[in-house]
Amino acid sequence: MGFDPDTPRIHPDPIEADPADEESLDVWGFRDTAFRARADGVVELTGSRYDLSGQEMPDLLGWVQRTIHPGVVPDDLNPPSYPPRIPEPIANPAFLDEARKILADDEILDDPEVRLRHGHGHTQEEMYRIKYGSLERVPDLVVQPSREEQVEALVQAAIRHDVSLIPYGGGTNVTDALRCPVGERRSIVSVDMSRMNRILWIDPVNHMACIEAGAVGRHINEGLAKHGFTLGHEPDSVEFSTLGGWVATHCSGMKKNRYGNIEDIVLGVRVVTARGVLERPAVAPRESVGSGDVRRWIFGSEGCLGIVTSAIVKIFPAPEVQEYASIVFPDLESGVRFLYDVQRSGRVPASVRVVDNAQFQLSQMLKPRSTGLKKVKSAIEKFFVTKIKGFDVEQMCACTLVYEGTREEVAEQQRSIAAHAKRHGGIAGGSENGKRGYQLTYGIAYIRDWILNHYLIAESFETSVPWSQALSLCEAVKKRLRDEHAKRGLPGKPYVTCRVTQVYPTGVCIYFYFAFYFKGVESPSEVYSEIEHAARDAVLEAGGSLSHHHGIGKIRQPFLPRIASPGMIRWGREIKSAVDPTNVFGAGNQLFAAPESSGTPGSTVESEAS
Amino acid sequence: MGFDPDTPRIHPDPIEADPADEESLDVWGFRDTAFRARADGVVELTGSRYDLSGQEMPDLLGWVQRTIHPGVVPDDLNPPSYPPRIPEPIANPAFLDEARKILADDEILDDPEVRLRHGHGHTQEEMYRIKYGSLERVPDLVVQPSREEQVEALVQAAIRHDVSLIPYGGGTNVTDALRCPVGERRSIVSVDMSRMNRILWIDPVNHMACIEAGAVGRHINEGLAKHGFTLGHEPDSVEFSTLGGWVATHCSGMKKNRYGNIEDIVLGVRVVTARGVLERPAVAPRESVGSGDVRRWIFGSEGCLGIVTSAIVKIFPAPEVQEYASIVFPDLESGVRFLYDVQRSGRVPASVRVVDNAQFQLSQMLKPRSTGLKKVKSAIEKFFVTKIKGFDVEQMCACTLVYEGTREEVAEQQRSIAAHAKRHGGIAGGSENGKRGYQLTYGIAYIRDWILNHYLIAESFETSVPWSQALSLCEAVKKRLRDEHAKRGLPGKPYVTCRVTQVYPTGVCIYFYFAFYFKGVESPSEVYSEIEHAARDAVLEAGGSLSHHHGIGKIRQPFLPRIASPGMIRWGREIKSAVDPTNVFGAGNQLFAAPESSGTPGSTVESEAS
Repeated sequence: MGFDPDTPRIHPDPIEADPADEESLDVWGFRDTAFRARADGVVELTGSRYDLSGQEMPDLLGWVQRTIHPGVVPDDLNPPSYPPRIPEPIANPAFLDEARKILADDEILDDPEVRLRHGHGHTQEEMYRIKYGSLERVPDLVVQPSREEQVEALVQAAIRHDVSLIPYGGGTNVTDALRCPVGERRSIVSVDMSRMNRILWIDPVNHMACIEAGAVGRHINEGLAKHGFTLGHEPDSVEFSTLGGWVATHCSGMKKNRYGNIEDIVLGVRVVTARGVLERPAVAPRESVGSGDVRRWIFGSEGCLGIVTSAIVKIFPAPEVQEYASIVFPDLESGVRFLYDVQRSGRVPASVRVVDNAQFQLSQMLKPRSTGLKKVKSAIEKFFVTKIKGFDVEQMCACTLVYEGTREEVAEQQRSIAAHAKRHGGIAGGSENGKRGYQLTYGIAYIRDWILNHYLIAESFETSVPWSQALSLCEAVKKRLRDEHAKRGLPGKPYVTCRVTQVYPTGVCIYFYFAFYFKGVESPSEVYSEIEHAARDAVLEAGGSLSHHHGIGKIRQPFLPRIASPGMIRWGREIKSAVDPTNVFGAGNQLFAAPESSGTPGSTVESEAS
Repeated sequence: MGFDPDTPRIHPDPIEADPADEESLDVWGFRDTAFRARADGVVELTGSRYDLSGQEMPDLLGWVQRTIHPGVVPDDLNPPSYPPRIPEPIANPAFLDEARKILADDEILDDPEVRLRHGHGHTQEEMYRIKYGSLERVPDLVVQPSREEQVEALVQAAIRHDVSLIPYGGGTNVTDALRCPVGERRSIVSVDMSRMNRILWIDPVNHMACIEAGAVGRHINEGLAKHGFTLGHEPDSVEFSTLGGWVATHCSGMKKNRYGNIEDIVLGVRVVTARGVLERPAVAPRESVGSGDVRRWIFGSEGCLGIVTSAIVKIFPAPEVQEYASIVFPDLESGVRFLYDVQRSGRVPASVRVVDNAQFQLSQMLKPRSTGLKKVKSAIEKFFVTKIKGFDVEQMCACTLVYEGTREEVAEQQRSIAAHAKRHGGIAGGSENGKRGYQLTYGIAYIRDWILNHYLIAESFETSVPWSQALSLCEAVKKRLRDEHAKRGLPGKPYVTCRVTQVYPTGVCIYFYFAFYFKGVESPSEVYSEIEHAARDAVLEAGGSLSHHHGIGKIRQPFLPRIASPGMIRWGREIKSAVDPTNVFGAGNQLFAAPESSGTPGSTVESEAS
């Protein structure tokens, strides 16, 4: 589209939710999708939503038995007892009366299972608890405002009636950010933003859009695509997570090399706070207005400083070309060296990531049964890589790539990538494997809940680190995980794997998965938490950050004094008190745990830092 | 350099200041450089520092006479009476005693002219006052710490003894950020960071460097260049402004398309605040640690929240190729349409900017006398552009470009630029004109002080605005400037010009210059301020931002309620009180003016917003 300053803004139709897209309350994702192991040991993914859906995975279970524990068999199940006992609500009748004046009847929810769902994200600990235990504290009420004025009125009512508000987006966090502080004696109200989900306008000249905070990623992308645009922001949770959640978490997307992370994408936010609405009449491409720029306060505020109601974002014309690719490398080190050169080249594809051998193996096991020619081709490829090229099947790793852009840009990147891959001993693995790698991101999210039924507990955590420390960090963290597993005499072998998911000029993001078999283990979820805590210690020891894009929430709070000086911790606390003196946004994440809510990890920060 | 994780950090030698680089106290820049008009009307630039130095400009004065006022002649001078009367210091003996324990004798300065220099930046009002009036308030003492521990001790001593501290970097701001609040009854101490100017380390693997805050841009670039790197950050003040000043101002550099603005470059900062040092043990390529990221608090804090002592920055290998270019367009609109397409192409040179006709004319007049073949060539070029191509000399404008990168990248950009230029009627203007355009940036900074001697008062101001409003904003602001000039019956014609200096996906930065002849005008500086204020009103009316990169300081404070909701203003105030309860950082810029210092523009913010 050429430059016509008078081109009007587009006002898209509201997003119509598809009834088929109903989400599960007890596990990750859509209701129509779940892994299951048939009696014959073949694993299936139900539904028809993903490429893998409806396919048979004959090799997965055997691989799990060999790699982790032979006890993982179809008929030895650890059935969940969801829903758990849900605590009685702490009522606040005066607030409820006001809420009834602000909201329509169907915008106020007190169904126990709905309350439960609003009281957790997707950490292993939370998911374990809702299936095999219970939550001590969940929101006492859930409200679903449809307009910003309602949010403003709710915040003022909450201040008047001493209620704690916790904003709720997609509920996909993995940091205990939604976990209600156990010591909270006030009524807790979850402010569910799902009704505020409209793309308010698209500006096709300046490539901006204004979108309400409750819109989920898949709807944003569909809505923009209708008009030839994309946001380009694709966190792994993009199907369910919301724009407001991305801002509050300080999110990253897998195609950030082309589209940027959330801080690059969001040009302006509207935020309802205890001291009024933070808003700007105009949004400029770049400014130096100091504290006049709302974004700095709100990125990563994790629901504790205000409620994001909408944001103005950069949008991009849908790319002319989208292509996938994969490369196999003899080992992780070659892969990282390849990434380093790619970053330096200036020809970085929208996404480029390298998985280690353990994850490469898993992805092979998640391949659907191949037959006929495809099977023959696959066998030949394997023969070529391992016998002719001499790759060690216990060392080789894979890189997957997404190219987006003009035909010319993509072609240039492909040429550059081919040259760098060759120099580091890489062998092209085909576009189909690349595409599968990315689609697995969505499918794989369902695995965790499924394997829990089979006594396997798993979780991921991420960090970012300068290039020179990347490989040593991977080694140190893996070693710590294995050592902690061994030290406790846990059954079977730990599954420990990492991938390098993002490249930056000065370093990378590294994503770890860790799983173990827990039949016969007492308090497996607590054991997992202890080991995960030890792994985070190893991450920090090795020079990694406390979080690349998941945020701090409550799960990483105890480590804040390790990454921030006492002065910084004081700043966070003082600022929270200054802008939210009654702690109406009482989620208690990050630096913002109320000092009085002792017993929560926040108190650790307080005691270690002050 | 390949990926060798064990490559050690480089610890460069300290920067040795060149005695030839002495700076003027009364005017912009180096002492060896000044414009002057000879009796024969030829203008010269003294010294040998710049390409223009030692050259004769025979056409400039005549053009000024025709364009602005015929009274601008060599012998009609308005000689400055610098230095002005300097107010008596408000002594604080108890603080001075402590300062003497913290600092060496030569790190404590009370020379009146040094105090004066530390009490202003380079706004027209400040420069007019030091030459033809006086400053009501300047720092009472100047200290020059050499180490962060000294800064910490000074801050604590200042809190104990009720002293106001104002950090001082290069003194180049154009927002009255260094102007001392007139109502300040405490002793004001300027903390001059010039001794903390070392590049502490260079990390050649991860492309990072740690640099002290008082290092000036030219020394940083020289220091990094010795080891094959560049910061790539080149604000127009790069010769004199400091890393700490860039952070505190939230600076932009002309080559930001390749290297980013300061927020893209700075990975971490150390800041001494009233509540302790904000520091991090590690710097990651990207994080989501919310308030744990110091940078968000400090970018654009304008000396009011703490003193930046060092920063860790991204560095880049020196580019393989640097090339300049210029293009002539029939008018500003064609130039802006060209920029729009260039931004959309993804092949954006390190710098690309378009000057309007008035500025194009000025740049022609700043050409040194050409003789022989060069003169013939220049005449032929002019003939071609105006007679053959039919460009209107009163409409045509120019684009200057800097390419940096690999040979291949630059070649691709050049091909792309050529195609876009052709489509918009552009004619290649040669690399020499491009280079001259950029070098003029440094030379032109000296013009303002020179023309003041000839009764010409001038100033620049900048904004950023979405693409679709760029041309209408230029027109509206120029019209307002001309109207305000006419309304007051000022002598001669106003000189009004703009250039589009930066492109972004969603808009541009626009830089205005405004000058008028003031002989016989009462209080010309105040008149200028009034008109400039009106122009800023027009900028905001037209959808522009209050500042693209100069910051807010005190000069733009009255407009804060126009760009920020009352809630945001309250946030700024509350946060300042929370982290600096005694207002030890008392510069009073932006949202951080102490409410009690009535009489300063800050009080306007207070009264309009609360």
